[in-house]
Amino acid sequence: MLNRIPGIDYVFKDPGLLEKALTHRSFGSHNNERLEFLGDAILSLVVADRLFHLHPDVSEGDLSRLRSRVVRGDTLARLANKLRLSDHLIMGEGELKTGGFKKNSILADTLEALFGAIYLDGGFRECERVVRQACDDVIDNLPDAEELKDPKTRLQEWMQARGRPLPIYQLEKEEGAEHAKLFTVSVTLAGSREQAFASGSSRRKAEQAAASQMLETLRTAAQ
Amino acid sequence: MLNRIPGIDYVFKDPGLLEKALTHRSFGSHNNERLEFLGDAILSLVVADRLFHLHPDVSEGDLSRLRSRVVRGDTLARLANKLRLSDHLIMGEGELKTGGFKKNSILADTLEALFGAIYLDGGFRECERVVRQACDDVIDNLPDAEELKDPKTRLQEWMQARGRPLPIYQLEKEEGAEHAKLFTVSVTLAGSREQAFASGSSRRKAEQAAASQMLETLRTAAQ
Repeated sequence: MLNRIPGIDYVFKDPGLLEKALTHRSFGSHNNERLEFLGDAILSLVVADRLFHLHPDVSEGDLSRLRSRVVRGDTLARLANKLRLSDHLIMGEGELKTGGFKKNSILADTLEALFGAIYLDGGFRECERVVRQACDDVIDNLPDAEELKDPKTRLQEWMQARGRPLPIYQLEKEEGAEHAKLFTVSVTLAGSREQAFASGSSRRKAEQAAASQMLETLRTAAQ
Repeated sequence: MLNRIPGIDYVFKDPGLLEKALTHRSFGSHNNERLEFLGDAILSLVVADRLFHLHPDVSEGDLSRLRSRVVRGDTLARLANKLRLSDHLIMGEGELKTGGFKKNSILADTLEALFGAIYLDGGFRECERVVRQACDDVIDNLPDAEELKDPKTRLQEWMQARGRPLPIYQLEKEEGAEHAKLFTVSVTLAGSREQAFASGSSRRKAEQAAASQMLETLRTAAQ
């Protein structure tokens, strides 16, 4: 029975735990879903701790945005691919045939389950060491917290920094059938003739797109 | 300077960390918000670990619902009240006057910040011990995982368990002005004349209320 994964510097005392971590639910009820629940919590803490120390002057909101970037599915899938986790996945026939071993969500979940298994097998410190080995490169090369903010937040902060009133969003049009609606939204800035329009499948998405356009306009005007 | 809180069995090596954990943002920029970010992550892991071992046969979805019940604001505020944390809060004049020391959200956040400070001051094991002392009573007396599911999930599982098709939700009416909308929804079960209606301030809320009514009807009919 396998007791370690090449690329992860940890040898399992209980190889059964490693096997469980690698087992997708398509294989049966003895699978990695509960370990994933645990691993997700460990990963969140280890990344939070690292970011806390790395960015002593960053607000909790920014810390939280930075962490999301590390623990989100596509980042974890990228790390899982680097470790070639797909070579070791244990899955049901159906999932195998449809290429489940290449699915980002399955790879990301398996990596979390692996962290959970190491935590159970070796304790917090050992698991922290392994998580850090896997993630520090990502954590140390995150974009600036500012860039991770959504456009509406950035536009609002741009206005506040200049002592100007908040942007005004207005629903201009709502068209299409119940399940294929299209919302068109405008954003206006008090004391300015600038206006931006955008559409999206939800009001929120349309507002974000409009804010993004307005930021672009402001940026161009400022140059 | 205070180096411990009565009721919490931990003595701070660095009393400055305890002071920071007790300081609300209304007091100034040297406040507990970043510690709260860290404490939230530790609390999540310690509770996840405990639930994982306490309920070896519970699914990850149920584990997650059970944990939410422990780490949600009103549970933490109750624990904070038991520890009389409000006696030690450090806040700005404004918050003090408006009774901020009694606000559930502030008390819950402060308790998380306190866990974060203990983690930094004493490490994971010490912090785990303190979190367990504070929370085990709640964790060991949680309602059954089944009861924590929302009505739509419960109704869906009720139907699936009987091999019947999924409930059908339909928007019946949408009335009121933009910011005070009222949605009315119906739920129908294929192959049954039973139907339930309910209203709510969002479509989702109306659907949950309709599912809840339908469950009641089914329960009464089954008796």
